[in-house]
Amino acid sequence: MTTHEILEKAKKAKSELSLVSVEKINEALLYMADSLIDHTDDILINNREDIERARDTVSSVMIDRLSLSEERIKGMAEGIREVADLPSPVGKVLSSHTLSNGLVVEKTSVPLGVVAIIYESRPNVTSDAAALALKSGNVCVLRSGKEAHKSASAIVRALCDGLERAGLSKDFVLLIEDTTRQSSLDLMTATGYVDLLIPRGGKGLISACVRNATVPCIQTGTGICHIYVDESADQEMALRIIENAKTSRPSVCNAEEVLLINEKIASEFLPKLKVLLCDNRAEHPVELRLDERAQKIIDGTPASDTDFDTEFLDYILAVGIVKDTDEAIEHINRHSTGHSEAIITNTKENAEKFAKMIDSSSVYINASTRFTDGGEFGLGCEMGISTQKLHARGPMGLFELNTYKYIIKGQGQIRT
Amino acid sequence: MTTHEILEKAKKAKSELSLVSVEKINEALLYMADSLIDHTDDILINNREDIERARDTVSSVMIDRLSLSEERIKGMAEGIREVADLPSPVGKVLSSHTLSNGLVVEKTSVPLGVVAIIYESRPNVTSDAAALALKSGNVCVLRSGKEAHKSASAIVRALCDGLERAGLSKDFVLLIEDTTRQSSLDLMTATGYVDLLIPRGGKGLISACVRNATVPCIQTGTGICHIYVDESADQEMALRIIENAKTSRPSVCNAEEVLLINEKIASEFLPKLKVLLCDNRAEHPVELRLDERAQKIIDGTPASDTDFDTEFLDYILAVGIVKDTDEAIEHINRHSTGHSEAIITNTKENAEKFAKMIDSSSVYINASTRFTDGGEFGLGCEMGISTQKLHARGPMGLFELNTYKYIIKGQGQIRT
Repeated sequence: MTTHEILEKAKKAKSELSLVSVEKINEALLYMADSLIDHTDDILINNREDIERARDTVSSVMIDRLSLSEERIKGMAEGIREVADLPSPVGKVLSSHTLSNGLVVEKTSVPLGVVAIIYESRPNVTSDAAALALKSGNVCVLRSGKEAHKSASAIVRALCDGLERAGLSKDFVLLIEDTTRQSSLDLMTATGYVDLLIPRGGKGLISACVRNATVPCIQTGTGICHIYVDESADQEMALRIIENAKTSRPSVCNAEEVLLINEKIASEFLPKLKVLLCDNRAEHPVELRLDERAQKIIDGTPASDTDFDTEFLDYILAVGIVKDTDEAIEHINRHSTGHSEAIITNTKENAEKFAKMIDSSSVYINASTRFTDGGEFGLGCEMGISTQKLHARGPMGLFELNTYKYIIKGQGQIRT
Repeated sequence: MTTHEILEKAKKAKSELSLVSVEKINEALLYMADSLIDHTDDILINNREDIERARDTVSSVMIDRLSLSEERIKGMAEGIREVADLPSPVGKVLSSHTLSNGLVVEKTSVPLGVVAIIYESRPNVTSDAAALALKSGNVCVLRSGKEAHKSASAIVRALCDGLERAGLSKDFVLLIEDTTRQSSLDLMTATGYVDLLIPRGGKGLISACVRNATVPCIQTGTGICHIYVDESADQEMALRIIENAKTSRPSVCNAEEVLLINEKIASEFLPKLKVLLCDNRAEHPVELRLDERAQKIIDGTPASDTDFDTEFLDYILAVGIVKDTDEAIEHINRHSTGHSEAIITNTKENAEKFAKMIDSSSVYINASTRFTDGGEFGLGCEMGISTQKLHARGPMGLFELNTYKYIIKGQGQIRT
């Protein structure tokens, strides 16, 4: 099927889905989870084909991301069941207002309609995204990376089987068949068909969306996260937080990439940092990329022009020295991607200023940036982390996959 | 100043504004209102120059929109004072969540930052938009239509005077000096500078934004509003509502443009409609543009292909006959701009189906579409009516000019 034919199906399906009850959707999700398990063999066979084809062209990290096992499929099914258990965001009366003429104006949450997701090689995104979209009442159009397309197809077959077992249309979960760049572009420009496009991928994909998208789009995931250690910081706490934010999982978007230190404590703090992150870490020592002033205090790689604007996703940390909280805030607002930033301080005034002025989705006072996550923030799930300000900011849960409409009930009122 | 220089000023000013208290903002708004009155002479002189220059090129309706008087300036000042009286949307804790490790995650409303507004010839938009932006904590960058630029400049001078009297930076309200198309394009592509772009104008401006904008943008105002008269409708009520929706103010976006009638009552209803909207209206008879089936019942203009996709903003109404509520819903979702639609019915089931399935910002049951308005909906004001689904839908008030961020307060927590 062409991408346009699939989008036509999606558009028709969204009207149908708007009449399906919350109970029915939850029932379908449970069938979809069962069906994933039933399709295990088919999924694994197709996944092996993807892996065989990809082996020569992609890194071993990518192969690992791509690989499914019986265990992983069980995990995916469990994930869908957890989504079924979450409260539905649909049909909530967000506000109600009665005009003096008796008109009742109700602001009610409703699904966006058709949510398209462009993603890369993790096959589990296929089932996660489909479950979250359906739970929030949306038809979901998936555009998987080329390397994972056979796996994604097998997973979507399983999910659609589940939908049909529940007596629902299999057009509620659709997979784009064209895996060339053209189909991404088709989705970005599908005005009137795609109500929300979520690109989940690297910088290249996100900026292609910013440049080309004419449909509503949410930028997700790029995180150049900063930690600023203030003059008054508890330095032991700062070290513990930096170690956690940088090294507990460097490949994720909420990991720290830049450390800024107040000049008054730099010469005391930096040697301790070097011992902790470099000297004492035999397995994965962190490479420190130092600005000019930091280079005078400890050894490390001199930072290049781009190091303070790079999402390393690796055991690398850019380190700079600043005069005070104001300079830290200014630096962060200039270089950050708007994801997560932290201040370590014991000065209430500086903490408040930092929280007020930092223009990012998540601002931490004395804690690790690694907590920015839908589960941690109590959303129950996560469709991605928005680094933009419109509609959704930070971790996106089910509620962020809804919009609202005003339903106005009258008895013949006219406006005078 | 170049547009880029103005945007640099705006970016700097937004950090400054984030530290200004709600009380100070309200105080500044009152000074701005006073200052508008004080600058009446300057504003009127400049307004007359605009009018002189425009007289040969624009319609008399446009001249009327452009024209200011002492009275109108008083009204603008009063508008600002009303905005000062509204509750501030900034700094509200929208949700709070304490993790088991003691971290407190607060979702807090914050200004978007820099809000840019591209508008046309009504000079009062200058003060309205500036007041709403400032009240919601945003720096505002205004790009007025060429015809009204001198008036807008004089108004901005007055507003900035007010800001300075309150001890605030005059860079919180900025006017773009370049009135060529280039400056609109510059705003649409000012990534990193403009946090939200609101185009307030005709179809051409809106679609230019959809095509070109790389900054977050909210489409406003285009309204092809439908009324569907169901088989079970109270026909007298239907006639009263249609007359109101079509003729009370045909030039506004919430006026009715298309009427759909259930086939079972068409031959009874249409002649009554014709008497009411055409025969009995000597001054402004409505031109009915009829589909083929309606033409067999009453006289009127045969509808062309485009008449069901046109925002007439005039005494013209496209009239079509449909089989049932399903066909009406399908027609509306295909042709509507997502603004406001109404069903007139006494069948609860049809009303509910219509409310659920119609994909528009405001869905009316037995009332006129003319109520779609920030004031009527209890928002206290209006920055425009969004016809998109992301972030804001329908009338936009102060709350819709805010985003949120998560502020996370810890005592050294790390993620394990």
